[in-house]
Amino acid sequence: MQSGNERTRVVIESVRPEVDAGRFPIKRIVGEKVVVEADVFADGHEALSCVLLHRREGTPRWTEVPMEPLVNDRWRGEFTVTELGRYRYTLQAWIEPFQSWQRDLQKKVDAGQDISVELVVGAELLRSVRSRASADDKKQLESAAATLTRKGRAERKVHVALDEQLAKLVARYSERRFATTYQRELTVVVDRERARFSTWYEMFPHSCAPKPGRHGTFKDCEERLAYVAAMGFDVLYLPPIHPVGHTHRKGKNNSPLAGAKDPGSPWAIGSEEGGHKAVNPLLGTLEDFRRLMDKAKETDIEIALDISFQCSPDHPYVREHPEWFRWRPDGTLQYAENPPKKYEDIYPFDFETEDWQELWQELKSIVLFWIEQGVRIFRVDNPHTKPFDFWERLIDEVKRDYPEVIFLSEAFTRPKIMYRLAKLGFSQSYTYFAWRNANWELSQYFTELTQMDVREYFRPNLWPNTPDILTEYLQSGGRPAFVTRLVLAATLGASYGIYGPAFELCENRPRQRGSEEYLDAEKYEIKHWQLDRPDSLKDFIARVNRIRKENPALQNDWSLSFHQVDNEQLICYSKGTEDLKNVIVVVVNLDPHYTQSGWVELDLDKLGVDTHQPYEMHDLLADARYLWQGQRNYVDINPHVVPAHIFRLRTQTRRGKDFE
Amino acid sequence: MQSGNERTRVVIESVRPEVDAGRFPIKRIVGEKVVVEADVFADGHEALSCVLLHRREGTPRWTEVPMEPLVNDRWRGEFTVTELGRYRYTLQAWIEPFQSWQRDLQKKVDAGQDISVELVVGAELLRSVRSRASADDKKQLESAAATLTRKGRAERKVHVALDEQLAKLVARYSERRFATTYQRELTVVVDRERARFSTWYEMFPHSCAPKPGRHGTFKDCEERLAYVAAMGFDVLYLPPIHPVGHTHRKGKNNSPLAGAKDPGSPWAIGSEEGGHKAVNPLLGTLEDFRRLMDKAKETDIEIALDISFQCSPDHPYVREHPEWFRWRPDGTLQYAENPPKKYEDIYPFDFETEDWQELWQELKSIVLFWIEQGVRIFRVDNPHTKPFDFWERLIDEVKRDYPEVIFLSEAFTRPKIMYRLAKLGFSQSYTYFAWRNANWELSQYFTELTQMDVREYFRPNLWPNTPDILTEYLQSGGRPAFVTRLVLAATLGASYGIYGPAFELCENRPRQRGSEEYLDAEKYEIKHWQLDRPDSLKDFIARVNRIRKENPALQNDWSLSFHQVDNEQLICYSKGTEDLKNVIVVVVNLDPHYTQSGWVELDLDKLGVDTHQPYEMHDLLADARYLWQGQRNYVDINPHVVPAHIFRLRTQTRRGKDFE
Repeated sequence: MQSGNERTRVVIESVRPEVDAGRFPIKRIVGEKVVVEADVFADGHEALSCVLLHRREGTPRWTEVPMEPLVNDRWRGEFTVTELGRYRYTLQAWIEPFQSWQRDLQKKVDAGQDISVELVVGAELLRSVRSRASADDKKQLESAAATLTRKGRAERKVHVALDEQLAKLVARYSERRFATTYQRELTVVVDRERARFSTWYEMFPHSCAPKPGRHGTFKDCEERLAYVAAMGFDVLYLPPIHPVGHTHRKGKNNSPLAGAKDPGSPWAIGSEEGGHKAVNPLLGTLEDFRRLMDKAKETDIEIALDISFQCSPDHPYVREHPEWFRWRPDGTLQYAENPPKKYEDIYPFDFETEDWQELWQELKSIVLFWIEQGVRIFRVDNPHTKPFDFWERLIDEVKRDYPEVIFLSEAFTRPKIMYRLAKLGFSQSYTYFAWRNANWELSQYFTELTQMDVREYFRPNLWPNTPDILTEYLQSGGRPAFVTRLVLAATLGASYGIYGPAFELCENRPRQRGSEEYLDAEKYEIKHWQLDRPDSLKDFIARVNRIRKENPALQNDWSLSFHQVDNEQLICYSKGTEDLKNVIVVVVNLDPHYTQSGWVELDLDKLGVDTHQPYEMHDLLADARYLWQGQRNYVDINPHVVPAHIFRLRTQTRRGKDFE
Repeated sequence: MQSGNERTRVVIESVRPEVDAGRFPIKRIVGEKVVVEADVFADGHEALSCVLLHRREGTPRWTEVPMEPLVNDRWRGEFTVTELGRYRYTLQAWIEPFQSWQRDLQKKVDAGQDISVELVVGAELLRSVRSRASADDKKQLESAAATLTRKGRAERKVHVALDEQLAKLVARYSERRFATTYQRELTVVVDRERARFSTWYEMFPHSCAPKPGRHGTFKDCEERLAYVAAMGFDVLYLPPIHPVGHTHRKGKNNSPLAGAKDPGSPWAIGSEEGGHKAVNPLLGTLEDFRRLMDKAKETDIEIALDISFQCSPDHPYVREHPEWFRWRPDGTLQYAENPPKKYEDIYPFDFETEDWQELWQELKSIVLFWIEQGVRIFRVDNPHTKPFDFWERLIDEVKRDYPEVIFLSEAFTRPKIMYRLAKLGFSQSYTYFAWRNANWELSQYFTELTQMDVREYFRPNLWPNTPDILTEYLQSGGRPAFVTRLVLAATLGASYGIYGPAFELCENRPRQRGSEEYLDAEKYEIKHWQLDRPDSLKDFIARVNRIRKENPALQNDWSLSFHQVDNEQLICYSKGTEDLKNVIVVVVNLDPHYTQSGWVELDLDKLGVDTHQPYEMHDLLADARYLWQGQRNYVDINPHVVPAHIFRLRTQTRRGKDFE
């Protein structure tokens, strides 16, 4: 038989987390743990050791962490990622002859068998690791070995032989010549906290002028910052800020004929005034934009830009790089289409052009350009219509130099494509949340997103509306529907966003019945929003966002857990910190029309609550306190008052006193 | 950006079946299908093609099979393995621009849009594949292209353009320069039918003498063949047939002192008369053994030998190759032990010896030796106490020359180790069946074995007893317990076996209370069994095995499905052929003491039965016929009559008339 690694007898398999056999990294946030589990076993019955190895990429040395056996040959270990960037981890395991020997010796002693030869074997094992030991340890090993073989009372020898400290000492120098190293090195991408916990507000700069009729500017946006900050948002996402094309510019309500004053869709990027690296002169200058960013920072808001890799017919690229586009046999450029729909104001790039390398390089340089201006968050438009490899390289290359950059994938498409984009590097992803209204579909979908393997790479960002999505639920449910969807988004998702002011002003008129598009959509026209309308949700939103900031339970997704309610118009779920010091229970009435009531059945064990003691449910929305006891409790929610409870659960028992 | 495979836009992932990212092969039987599924998708919305590629190992050319899309980007294809040995399979997928074009054209035509430029695009697409086409096809492509661009009625052009046959023609020559080939080639090990469907009988040759007191011989075994064949077994497994050691030979009931006439455990292999390549002279000669095999073949029985890689102290290897064993510091050899138990009549090999290559080679030569004598089935003793790599190489190397060889793994150990042994190559595996008695544990365990991924490599072989395993259930349940366990083994498992004649004679006396060992175990002494005892189960076993032979439903495991019963002392399950022409429903009373009755609730849809029509349940054990209707039917089973029904389900409706 041929020689190989025959004497590495330990097997390491079923390692978790591991995405597609290590093809893709998992994601974590600075300060988070990576808990690794694996099946580790060997033939026979010998004792094993297993370690988790981890290192920051670029650091040559591995750090070793011992793993502990659970049951059924499953082992677990963990490490914490402390810096932005990329980490690697893998596993190593080996046989521990001395520990095996100790275990067998104990059994023989218990059975009263003669152990004289065994003691000599033990001494040999002790001496076999000597050569690797430090001077002090060497002495200790030698002394123990001498005790085992020297004449004397067996009890004394057994006492020394079975010493746990001795086992640890030996293990420090275990023979690893035949150790098994797991065949893959796995990767962790470590992001900053905002990749996990972020509160987004989308706003059209062109509508920010204080008076109707005028095109908004970056300066107007500055004035708007206080309004946005007061609601508690920390990411302000602007649709494209570049010059807008003229040719085939769309008018109001997507009309093929634009009026003279129509601003055009910001996504029809590029004109004689510049392309993706320029700003629309109507908004101001690059200088103005940078100042907006600075001002935003002062109110703890970060500006996120849109990345839409497409051009208006007037984009300089069209002239300078005709080879980057698809040409039709009639000599015209191929516009974007989704037959029978035509988007004549937009030309897609031909990512498969023979000159793909130059094109891809240039597109990356756009991202780098805005990074140089200080932007660190990008919302990427329709990434699913560009090649996966393009995004994987772009994100990887950008994040190697700027690991703090966050990319949000705006892909509303089939699930596997959305997951693929997340795997290949997007930091956050839009979800199907907007269309999940019923109890069963919300709990099923969010269990998939937060409890299954997909959570290792897919970070959901929940939007109840966008400029393109006005759901039937919002159209028909009135103000209670907006409140309900806001509470759901803000508490089901550590990251969520709204498109405002349309959202807080409960704008819900569709272009036509059965359409999800807004009537008089802001995409195609300058709107003047009445921000101080008394029915605005802005104060409610501010309260919800403050609750999010004050309760770490709501700042991550993994602890999400659904609880039974006997009325399917209600939904109940909880989130908690790992130590359960902060536990939030949310109950929402999904019916925007009628009061709904029912019995909520909490999984108290999961929430760290003693079943026999009352616990306080503090509704943070209404600032009302209830004393609940036991699993089953009654709720009754009128959507026309507030369609939800966001309870902070406090208990005096079990896991610490946290009554305030 | 650097160049790579950027323009392969299609992704192929989540391929099934695939064991540990392709590290291990899946298993099939000659004539079986390999159904392959994968997620296949690209960015954008273009039409794709995906093919399954397969070939026999050693054949350079792949055979291509088209895969069909299911839902949610899942694709499926299949091929049949027709020869013993190893096959490979992988997948390839690419974008079909012409099909995408056709789909879009249809939409534009439906919307009444101008398509004149589109038709030119289509003609270009047709011409782009011309260079790869055969002369005839080239002509057709050219003619179609000409039609699209020539002056004439649009209807005619559209008719040609949207022709499905044309799409197929184009697809035959699709551009595959940027096709994605799945990154792994996956392997199938193809075995003969007996690896899936086999009926085993284990018997000690030393007890086969017709009269008490004499050591049995191969010739006696020949005489016993008719008895075994009459019961319907097709594999006769003999414990080791080699010379038995004298030193520390075990006496009756594992006594450390053997009497002069005690045969010794056959697993204490080797004496001055030879080792693993010799036969015990008390049994006869190698010539006698070969004749036994020939005679067995005449009754459709195949002899399976035991592979126990361990030696008695008298084995020639001990003298000739002391370096293959572990030596203790007192100069003695390390015997086998499971502290505090000692097996001084057995020395394990040291698989980690510096001379491992010579040792492993020699052990393989033992298997080859018996293959040369005509043996093709091996039951491997305690494989889990030898290195995994050793078995993987041995089985792989043996099966490359003798793909018809079957290895049964006798590992009763932790689940992950048992599965690992199956993955690395064992054709069949012992299971925990012997200790699964309750409805819930049987259904849970066999759902795992037959419905989960493990079935791709783990083929269960069910044994209600072995010479080492006399379960508490058999000890306490009397004859009904034996019948129950036989029916369960024979119908839950396509492969099962019994250790006889202990089994059919309902031998159930343990050495002591709480022990699973037999009193006066045959392992240590020559037994004389009264085969014609009137209470023998032999006729019942013969009937059950005939039912197995006559009903293909019972010859595979994958169709196993459990049905609800409202009495947990009863269990109900079914198996069927793929076309449902042969469907077997089994109902067993698990309580060996009392009559149990209850309502069985059949999943009729799964069984191909019309809910509104009566169907015949033909109890093949009692040869009684019942007319059932609907899901729920009543059963009442007295264990002292027959503790089970094995129904053949026949229906006149839905899937063919199969009333006989």
